[in-house]
Amino acid sequence: MRAFAHAARRQDIAARGLARRASTMSAVHRLDSDSPVASMEELMSFCRSRAIILESSGVYGGAATTYDFGPVGAQLKKNIVDMWWRDFVENRDDVAPLDTGVILNPAVWRGSGHVEEFTDPLTQCETCKRRFRADKLLEEADGGAEHWDGKTLEEMGAALVALGVACPSCGAKAEAGLGTPRPFNLLFETSIGPVQDGSSTAFLRPETAQGALVQGPLVLSLTRARLPAGLAQVGKSFRNEIAVGQSLFRTREFEQAEIQVFCEPESSGDLLQQWVEDCNTWLVDRLGLTPSRIRRRVHEESELAHYALATTDIEFNYPFGWGELWGIANRGKYDLLRHEAASGQDMRFRDPRDGGRTAFHPFVVEPALGVGRLVLAVLSDCLVTEAAPAAAKGKKQAPGRLVLRVPDEIAPSRAAVLPLMNKDGMPERAAEIAAALRRMGAGGVQVDTSGSIGKRYRRQDEVGTPLCVTVDYTTLEDGTVTVRCRDTMRQARLSVADIEDAIGPRGLTRDKLQGVFATVVR
Amino acid sequence: MRAFAHAARRQDIAARGLARRASTMSAVHRLDSDSPVASMEELMSFCRSRAIILESSGVYGGAATTYDFGPVGAQLKKNIVDMWWRDFVENRDDVAPLDTGVILNPAVWRGSGHVEEFTDPLTQCETCKRRFRADKLLEEADGGAEHWDGKTLEEMGAALVALGVACPSCGAKAEAGLGTPRPFNLLFETSIGPVQDGSSTAFLRPETAQGALVQGPLVLSLTRARLPAGLAQVGKSFRNEIAVGQSLFRTREFEQAEIQVFCEPESSGDLLQQWVEDCNTWLVDRLGLTPSRIRRRVHEESELAHYALATTDIEFNYPFGWGELWGIANRGKYDLLRHEAASGQDMRFRDPRDGGRTAFHPFVVEPALGVGRLVLAVLSDCLVTEAAPAAAKGKKQAPGRLVLRVPDEIAPSRAAVLPLMNKDGMPERAAEIAAALRRMGAGGVQVDTSGSIGKRYRRQDEVGTPLCVTVDYTTLEDGTVTVRCRDTMRQARLSVADIEDAIGPRGLTRDKLQGVFATVVR
Repeated sequence: MRAFAHAARRQDIAARGLARRASTMSAVHRLDSDSPVASMEELMSFCRSRAIILESSGVYGGAATTYDFGPVGAQLKKNIVDMWWRDFVENRDDVAPLDTGVILNPAVWRGSGHVEEFTDPLTQCETCKRRFRADKLLEEADGGAEHWDGKTLEEMGAALVALGVACPSCGAKAEAGLGTPRPFNLLFETSIGPVQDGSSTAFLRPETAQGALVQGPLVLSLTRARLPAGLAQVGKSFRNEIAVGQSLFRTREFEQAEIQVFCEPESSGDLLQQWVEDCNTWLVDRLGLTPSRIRRRVHEESELAHYALATTDIEFNYPFGWGELWGIANRGKYDLLRHEAASGQDMRFRDPRDGGRTAFHPFVVEPALGVGRLVLAVLSDCLVTEAAPAAAKGKKQAPGRLVLRVPDEIAPSRAAVLPLMNKDGMPERAAEIAAALRRMGAGGVQVDTSGSIGKRYRRQDEVGTPLCVTVDYTTLEDGTVTVRCRDTMRQARLSVADIEDAIGPRGLTRDKLQGVFATVVR
Repeated sequence: MRAFAHAARRQDIAARGLARRASTMSAVHRLDSDSPVASMEELMSFCRSRAIILESSGVYGGAATTYDFGPVGAQLKKNIVDMWWRDFVENRDDVAPLDTGVILNPAVWRGSGHVEEFTDPLTQCETCKRRFRADKLLEEADGGAEHWDGKTLEEMGAALVALGVACPSCGAKAEAGLGTPRPFNLLFETSIGPVQDGSSTAFLRPETAQGALVQGPLVLSLTRARLPAGLAQVGKSFRNEIAVGQSLFRTREFEQAEIQVFCEPESSGDLLQQWVEDCNTWLVDRLGLTPSRIRRRVHEESELAHYALATTDIEFNYPFGWGELWGIANRGKYDLLRHEAASGQDMRFRDPRDGGRTAFHPFVVEPALGVGRLVLAVLSDCLVTEAAPAAAKGKKQAPGRLVLRVPDEIAPSRAAVLPLMNKDGMPERAAEIAAALRRMGAGGVQVDTSGSIGKRYRRQDEVGTPLCVTVDYTTLEDGTVTVRCRDTMRQARLSVADIEDAIGPRGLTRDKLQGVFATVVR
């Protein structure tokens, strides 16, 4: 039945046309018998047990800043970031790479307005002295009816009383409870050099954007860029959040993949729409995320960040509910004008087509992606339980199989080579085959030696390995191996040479593999 | 003459045997007429002009922490790091990925000893109040005869007087000059959460190592690893250096590519040697660095870091002289014992082969690579001036050609497509060809449209693009293009389909390209 459902599904996919099919084929293969993982608790427990995501500084009781990625998680994250980089930077003519520092000249953050304005409303309980983010408490209290982050501190203070919001920690209300919010700055501070005084204060960047914005005019000029011209970078940013939570969703230390696209002011509206389309399409066609778990939300005027003329969020339905994944903002010329005023430098773009005679302040459209959030979206969408076939009468129903159905291109291991037994030369032959597959261009080929072969198949399913290659006694005789597909669990007896046909530029690809299965398995 | 010299050089390489030849062929092609760039000033000036390396926060007068990478530099760095990752992590069975935080639980740094011991000797001038690193001043004063970083503060203070070291800033000596050094801690401090008191103090990591060391025993256990087992990660580290300098060589914010290899204590000596070999071989065979610019230096006992049993540095001859590039240390069980004492957790390795009954503290061998230093080494080794052919009698000698002879695999652009004219449909055809090359699997294909074709060839030479594809009127008629090789400057007229043959898994490779030239150019 499973094979039939899969075949029907494949035909369905094929019917959507070749281009669509090609991208979907290389993305995720879900079956009708799949159920996605239900809760954050279940997902995080699984991630811990497979060393995908680890508590930071766990032996010291954890850290309040971030999470660590274990072997499977670190490679998954790298593969996702690399795919983003190939598709949005290397393979586009209108985006160029950039890599700017975490600790910039502190004048950058005074110029950008972050030192003065990058704050959250902090309210303290008069009774227990605990501190909270006022806008989040109010959102919970009124069920999200208002966008509180656009209100003044006084309005929030009045609303805390009017709505009768109690301290989440001790329960105190009214005068004994949460006080009028004050602004709390989210910049992490540090001090540079051996003299610690005001002049040595510096900040950890809260966004990679400003690095690109202060270097933008110079880089565009040196590279003779024409508009629209994007500068892309991936890197850590730091925000001293009052409250963190939902695992990778909100952490004080986090990774961003941002592009600042400099453009002519009049084209910025259309460009924002185009980037929203491009990002959304990428999530579905390349990462294989379920379309119904993605939606767009246009910011209302009252909730726009102070620098933004317009913003559209691409939201994802995480196990805890809808939340931002990708924010695409039109920052206008806000930042360039601020940096020009603060630094005294000309921040205009000069058009190389007329030798720089045309000069103006470009607008900036910014697709800003949270890498941790994207990894969380992929894990929660791709980790599924596949129901076992119905049990025969009187027999106990078998538990389902846990499978991480990530696209082949981002699978942490592209293939695993499994010696059936840990003796008689099988581990050595497995190592040779792994080396041969790597020489053919397949990255991330692992040898897995511990446990029964069935347990190893299940383990590889759980970390998303698309293909297992088993070395047994027959291998030692005639050189053939058993190849098994993660999604269909179909197996075929192939020669190592046959597998060459299944190798693509970035490892084993599903399309080629299906071709191999089609010729071998009837 | 040039072609002949090149042919002779190729034969010479071929004579060294096939395996050696294959790796050298994919690395760097230098000619006898090449001169490497002479000085740091010349190199950095070139890097600025081509937006390879930029002054951080330049419009605000710079930052004392780090440098930024512009488009060419950022892609070069990513390609180098990706090659390291493929060779040392993805394609090895004994190394697994990891990605830990910058801001860990501060107890990690108390446990590791960094809060107490991670200091440099700071001396202050009594006259001008400027501060300096005492060991570096003493090294300069005695011409490197002693390793001062192993001496006590009192010994250094006495030596400053005995050697008559003057203040580098105001020239004061003896009592009016540099005082007895005091320890200056290199950890950058910050504060987490809304309450700023001692309990919220945290540190930016000064090395990625401790993240791997505190997670090591857990990760090895979850992944059923056998020894030796390495955990590798790439990321930013931060040291509040008293003095920085020599561009990317010493910066306060810097990127590391480290592996912590957990091993049986008795095998740690051999393992260190093996890693020194592997790292050295990689620099020559894969990155193509000139062997005579690489040497090994075994640390004397007096200069070993407090945690190290033995250390071998791989040094590179930068334009400013020899300096560390890769440090391979045997950290013994120093860190695990410290973390076990401080955290109260069992930090032993448990062997999965007997169900964990065998348990012991593994030793850690650590190849630690500075990414910025590696980029600096590649740039200074690969940027060469190729002499022009000797001028005819009475003619002025032409200036040489500047070429960045990086291996194809790390070239920032793998190929550039150049429309001969910016009209008659050539730019559009160029964009189509670039898109076709990308579809074939060639990453980083750029279209370059500005300036004369000769200028564009030179510009692409300077940023290391191995291959230029020129679209001209004939292209519009018969679909053929002119393909030009960066190193030989040979050109061939090919169909776009022909170029397919030159595409390898990670873009256009030299071997395949030479094959194409051999069949087409006689």
